[in-house]
Amino acid sequence: MFDKNHLLPGDALKRVLSAIPERQETTERLRIEECYGRILASPVVAPEDLPAFARSTVDGFAVHSSDTFGARESLPAYINVKGEVFMGVAPDFSIGKGECARIPTGGMLPPGADAVVMLEYAQTVSDDMIEVMKPVAPHENIIRRGEDVEEGMLVLTRGRRLRPQDIGALAGLGITGVDVFTKPVVALVSTGDEIVPPGTPLRPGQVRDINSFTLAGLISEHGGVPVKKGIFSDEYGVIRGAIEEALSAADMVLVSGGTSAGVKDMTSTIIDDIGKPGVLFHGVSLKPGKPMIGGVIGNTPLFGLPGHPAAAVVCFDLFILPLLERLSGLDTGKCFPRTVRARMAKSIASSAGREDHIRVALERQGDELLAVPVLGKSGLITTLVRADGMVGIPQEKLGLDAGEEVTVKLF
Amino acid sequence: MFDKNHLLPGDALKRVLSAIPERQETTERLRIEECYGRILASPVVAPEDLPAFARSTVDGFAVHSSDTFGARESLPAYINVKGEVFMGVAPDFSIGKGECARIPTGGMLPPGADAVVMLEYAQTVSDDMIEVMKPVAPHENIIRRGEDVEEGMLVLTRGRRLRPQDIGALAGLGITGVDVFTKPVVALVSTGDEIVPPGTPLRPGQVRDINSFTLAGLISEHGGVPVKKGIFSDEYGVIRGAIEEALSAADMVLVSGGTSAGVKDMTSTIIDDIGKPGVLFHGVSLKPGKPMIGGVIGNTPLFGLPGHPAAAVVCFDLFILPLLERLSGLDTGKCFPRTVRARMAKSIASSAGREDHIRVALERQGDELLAVPVLGKSGLITTLVRADGMVGIPQEKLGLDAGEEVTVKLF
Repeated sequence: MFDKNHLLPGDALKRVLSAIPERQETTERLRIEECYGRILASPVVAPEDLPAFARSTVDGFAVHSSDTFGARESLPAYINVKGEVFMGVAPDFSIGKGECARIPTGGMLPPGADAVVMLEYAQTVSDDMIEVMKPVAPHENIIRRGEDVEEGMLVLTRGRRLRPQDIGALAGLGITGVDVFTKPVVALVSTGDEIVPPGTPLRPGQVRDINSFTLAGLISEHGGVPVKKGIFSDEYGVIRGAIEEALSAADMVLVSGGTSAGVKDMTSTIIDDIGKPGVLFHGVSLKPGKPMIGGVIGNTPLFGLPGHPAAAVVCFDLFILPLLERLSGLDTGKCFPRTVRARMAKSIASSAGREDHIRVALERQGDELLAVPVLGKSGLITTLVRADGMVGIPQEKLGLDAGEEVTVKLF
Repeated sequence: MFDKNHLLPGDALKRVLSAIPERQETTERLRIEECYGRILASPVVAPEDLPAFARSTVDGFAVHSSDTFGARESLPAYINVKGEVFMGVAPDFSIGKGECARIPTGGMLPPGADAVVMLEYAQTVSDDMIEVMKPVAPHENIIRRGEDVEEGMLVLTRGRRLRPQDIGALAGLGITGVDVFTKPVVALVSTGDEIVPPGTPLRPGQVRDINSFTLAGLISEHGGVPVKKGIFSDEYGVIRGAIEEALSAADMVLVSGGTSAGVKDMTSTIIDDIGKPGVLFHGVSLKPGKPMIGGVIGNTPLFGLPGHPAAAVVCFDLFILPLLERLSGLDTGKCFPRTVRARMAKSIASSAGREDHIRVALERQGDELLAVPVLGKSGLITTLVRADGMVGIPQEKLGLDAGEEVTVKLF
């Protein structure tokens, strides 16, 4: 097996990433209303100009801009009012030299007009005449046809997570459906003779399933579909059967629990027995999360997660999340992690050669945030409940000093 | 009416917040699997100890710690192996002085034992005898009964947004259902004679509905239930009817569109005509978003949002989001906004006395992020598509300098 002491999490992750295909190809076509947060599978090219006509951005008068050149309060330009533009309809007249039309914000510019004089700079002289006190430049106070989007322009790239305004842009272009990648299905196999579901009365020696609830939430939050396969007892045949069943219908399999060395080794053996390439790492220089197992069978990644709740969450962040992003088709180039800067409230020691991830609670101190380490064994779920995020200590550092500025990855 | 030029967004918001009840009281009881991201309506107190028994955190031997005191490699402690602990069952024996039991990680400590010697520090002498090479302190390598959570302890406070690990903690305590606040319903009334749904072919002068798609996504993302009431023409009776209908079934009403001054004034008049206290502000010192209207009818907040897409998004962030948080019952004391620090790529001017919110695209430059202003009229949806977030310029500042460090609120 590999050397447990010197495999860093990032290198362990690379072994798995390089053993699976570059990105997924399964797509589905959905109505845009169903696509919030989904990953675009094909680039979107504008089928038409947006807007489809020149529009006014103010309330005022559509004019030939040249008619206003040189206008000032002491020498206004006099212009004939030829008509009025109404919202949502094309004006049935055009504007010649010396002519203008009343126009509301958003109204369509009549043919001939190339700018709009704001209401504030025009005065009514008679029913069909205004005086303009200030010149307007060509295209002033209008949005030109295609100024927002020109027909044929690339609007959204493949692999983009669709945000509310992206869906708004699709609607604006008249695009009512798009292709998105299917959500990756992540099967959760919980193991442990001591684990029972939360609704079951506890007998001495038993504990309730925590991790499948935590992991299912994290998977959904990051665009996956969690499927809980159930709790299985620590027997080779039972766990192997559960993993094989899970592999048949999932894009990734997580085996959670099995905290003892014997059970860990069994999970690792089962992965190797099921198929190739099998286990790619077993044990990493990481705290919490040292007993992590990673492998691939066929094209499907498979992880053995530590049973301790805090370790499971750290391992989710370092291993499962990057895989989930890969499987979901996300282009991560434009993703910015949810982090805040904070100052350490106290010093924390760490061993060299190992990556440490400590849980911290955040407290406001004036304009700054203070990161208070939440101490406690990684087996305690309450350390995660009290914490607001995590701070990583790289392998080459011997700890963090009180007052040091750190980046906190928010939960 | 109020002075448009000197009402800052924060002060405008306060007028609305102080006119509605402190927090909402409608709750529903749901299974914990349905509560990810929901807001807890009652504090959760632990009904039992977690764990319910002392557990080992390592593979090894459960001992009386005092039997190991003084043990070292040159003078090991000899201890009789009385039995073995199995996962998930209570040992049917106890440990006396000079006795120990094999125990796996997570196993239940037999009565009498108070610590666990790791496998690495014990050597088998015979079938029923080990030698221990290193002393263990009382409680070493165990999690005590109730060490994670003690019965009666406050585990989660009212108003908390439930994260995956919080649901995990509930599962661990055997709590299968909790009370959460009902999601606030936000009715969207789109107005504008020129607006048509995205699936409809455009006639000259018409544009497609963008904002109700953008706003619906933002509302869902932040815990609300958007209800699109439809697109209504700019007539007093029609819009008044639509707003009254929306008020009857929603916790908040957003009137979107109506970009021209006449329509804005009509929306404002309608709000005042429907009920008290009516319009609380109309126009703010804000760019984009100046024509924003805010009011309350009975206990229901009501906003008139600018029609320009970028203005609608800025106003969502400054007005709708804080209201949505209030209506959802969220305790915002422990919320940390999704921001990143970046350096301005170029200088941007701003008018004093007005709060500016500029859209920026982020680019990585070594270890830093560069915030590149996305220029363009606020009526262009593509400025929002190209942007990754927004930077606020407070009213007292005259702009941002190139190279200045700023906080970017991520979309």
